[in-house]
Amino acid sequence: MRIALMNEFSQAGKNPIVLEQLNAVADDLGHQVFNVGMNGDNDHRLTYIHLGIMAGLLLNSKAVDFVISGCGTGQGALMSLNAHPGVVCGYCIDPSDAYLFAQINNGNALALPFAKGFGWGAELNCRYIFEKAFTGEKGQGYPPERKESQVQNAHILDGVKDAMCKDYLTGLKSLDQELVKTAVTGERFQACFFEHCQDKELEAYVRSVLEA
Amino acid sequence: MRIALMNEFSQAGKNPIVLEQLNAVADDLGHQVFNVGMNGDNDHRLTYIHLGIMAGLLLNSKAVDFVISGCGTGQGALMSLNAHPGVVCGYCIDPSDAYLFAQINNGNALALPFAKGFGWGAELNCRYIFEKAFTGEKGQGYPPERKESQVQNAHILDGVKDAMCKDYLTGLKSLDQELVKTAVTGERFQACFFEHCQDKELEAYVRSVLEA
Amino acid sequence: MRIALMNEFSQAGKNPIVLEQLNAVADDLGHQVFNVGMNGDNDHRLTYIHLGIMAGLLLNSKAVDFVISGCGTGQGALMSLNAHPGVVCGYCIDPSDAYLFAQINNGNALALPFAKGFGWGAELNCRYIFEKAFTGEKGQGYPPERKESQVQNAHILDGVKDAMCKDYLTGLKSLDQELVKTAVTGERFQACFFEHCQDKELEAYVRSVLEA
Amino acid sequence: MRIALMNEFSQAGKNPIVLEQLNAVADDLGHQVFNVGMNGDNDHRLTYIHLGIMAGLLLNSKAVDFVISGCGTGQGALMSLNAHPGVVCGYCIDPSDAYLFAQINNGNALALPFAKGFGWGAELNCRYIFEKAFTGEKGQGYPPERKESQVQNAHILDGVKDAMCKDYLTGLKSLDQELVKTAVTGERFQACFFEHCQDKELEAYVRSVLEA
Repeated sequence: MRIALMNEFSQAGKNPIVLEQLNAVADDLGHQVFNVGMNGDNDHRLTYIHLGIMAGLLLNSKAVDFVISGCGTGQGALMSLNAHPGVVCGYCIDPSDAYLFAQINNGNALALPFAKGFGWGAELNCRYIFEKAFTGEKGQGYPPERKESQVQNAHILDGVKDAMCKDYLTGLKSLDQELVKTAVTGERFQACFFEHCQDKELEAYVRSVLEA
Repeated sequence: MRIALMNEFSQAGKNPIVLEQLNAVADDLGHQVFNVGMNGDNDHRLTYIHLGIMAGLLLNSKAVDFVISGCGTGQGALMSLNAHPGVVCGYCIDPSDAYLFAQINNGNALALPFAKGFGWGAELNCRYIFEKAFTGEKGQGYPPERKESQVQNAHILDGVKDAMCKDYLTGLKSLDQELVKTAVTGERFQACFFEHCQDKELEAYVRSVLEA
Repeated sequence: MRIALMNEFSQAGKNPIVLEQLNAVADDLGHQVFNVGMNGDNDHRLTYIHLGIMAGLLLNSKAVDFVISGCGTGQGALMSLNAHPGVVCGYCIDPSDAYLFAQINNGNALALPFAKGFGWGAELNCRYIFEKAFTGEKGQGYPPERKESQVQNAHILDGVKDAMCKDYLTGLKSLDQELVKTAVTGERFQACFFEHCQDKELEAYVRSVLEA
Repeated sequence: MRIALMNEFSQAGKNPIVLEQLNAVADDLGHQVFNVGMNGDNDHRLTYIHLGIMAGLLLNSKAVDFVISGCGTGQGALMSLNAHPGVVCGYCIDPSDAYLFAQINNGNALALPFAKGFGWGAELNCRYIFEKAFTGEKGQGYPPERKESQVQNAHILDGVKDAMCKDYLTGLKSLDQELVKTAVTGERFQACFFEHCQDKELEAYVRSVLEA
């Protein structure tokens, strides 16, 4: 599995702490981590708005399978990611959240608070969250006897988002293109996206934005 | 302020507990509460999918100003509500979340977990959350010196959702209309919606769905 | 009610933040606050061990009615305070904890984590905790129908501590007297203790320690 | 390591849930679990007061190495256990608490809330707490550079409890002996205590209480 970590400007200083824990857990499980957002010495400023665009591109193009995001409280990242079709982002403050979200909602992104409640033990909490987010088979329901209706509702939610949203590429082109450009300017983002993107149209679109 | 409370089937049994707390807080503050979802003896089954549709209709028509929703973990309600343009829904497990979301994100909905972590003290926690969600001026930023960029990002997020989404009514009509019908069938929902709806087009649409 | 706030060295820097919130809540309720521990520019180093001694002296002499303490995780302060007879100290991370502890255990001290989980919103959480700790009648049971057995158990616990402990003054004299001396050296501690102490023997003991 | 689990009457119904998780974790780590409190069909009623006496006897006699206890909020168990010399009991609501307590305080008991916050996911949270409580070397400090002063303070706290308390056996005999008798009446408690007790005096005392 390919996992992207993305931090915005306000908590960019936490990136090394979170990345260390994510790498530790991912290594144990054979997953690959891409640190595609700010890391403290970035030359472009990302807000949670950009994180949503980045997550949408990476997930819809299958460049990555999962996204870990966040901001001060995590709520901005949460809503921004969920604004994009193809992104199913939960909010996570403890390891049980990660497990329950994986079993019930079977999403492909998590938003964490990187300032709210982030004191002693926060890096431990990140690690434990990642352990539970990435271990075991997902989508098995919780409690297990509710699996069928939970899987069904997750599927219906995807349909609702598709119905409410424009076609993804049309939507992207309806955005302020400066937002998209800033979102895709980072070298680490581009390295991940261009190497692993499995959608020619999205790739061409991102290249066109960069060249504009 | 008009506040709607909406519960889906899996935690419908918690509705009276949550309603009691919400009423207590709203009464003190002069707000009006509408209990528009399941209350344990409903004749139609609502899932978190329907809650999103209901919240979208109530908020976009200005029938209500704020929505309190939730499900087992709250994550389904959270994503379902955020799938609709005009709905800005945060996730809330403690009173500080409510305050920070009001100050930073200035949204119009909250999703709470009504099964996860819901044991002794849960009704207290609901009450304290409501106290902080509905007291004081919103959108003042946290910490206050970040107000400007936070207000700006909240505004940009609205624009992103508008860009990614179809026109709201077009989106609604793209949905499986059976979903919409179930969402609007409840008597208490209709009483709230038809009395306070301030959008003729949406009202006409809902009537047409009911008559279909 | 007189309320003492006491911080040890590791989180002394948080003292002004916590004090501000405690003062705000206490002022509203007509309570008096004494800041008796470290405040960042203290000339003597207090650990959670000293906090326990200080709390024991202040509560057993009725110099104060309630103690707010804490350390990095709060656990050291918690155990240190509870090591003294006459001190009934709960652990508190959210406002519901404060309410439940007041109703069920009716204690006279709380220990809070001032580093673990202490990030954005921590000062809000402190305030909300203080609001619930100091509002309303205590010892009413939770749920209310369990009041009788809860009051009884709280009473039995006092008896257990009395049985397991030496007479309080004998116990104090059994301690390393250097620990006691450091605990009572602070000017603000002394101002509170000597003005409000209602136990001549304890006062004489503290004076003797200071003169030794 | 031998680990005792003990539940009192108010949350005895949760015992099977907690025991299952504790057994699962302990089995993986090669630890032995003794379920010494109420399990739902006990013939004697234990309160958190009795849990403290039981924990004191089991830990001071080295019958077990660690105790998991709790009650509705966990606070009664917490204070009751800490009232006994030789018992160093922390409060634990998430896995990080368990880790931090093990590293900083290196205690031999934990109190958990079995009603407050105990909803969906509670059994997961118990499991994750046990995983972190029983894995890895304890007493290594957190952050690690504070190990020396943290180990020292833990040692001083033991000394404070010894100074404040009577000799343990004298303390036990000062208690209402009916409390002690109820605490030691359970068959499962006795099986654990008499088989593994490593203190002849304590064993003789317990036998004398049972024969009285």
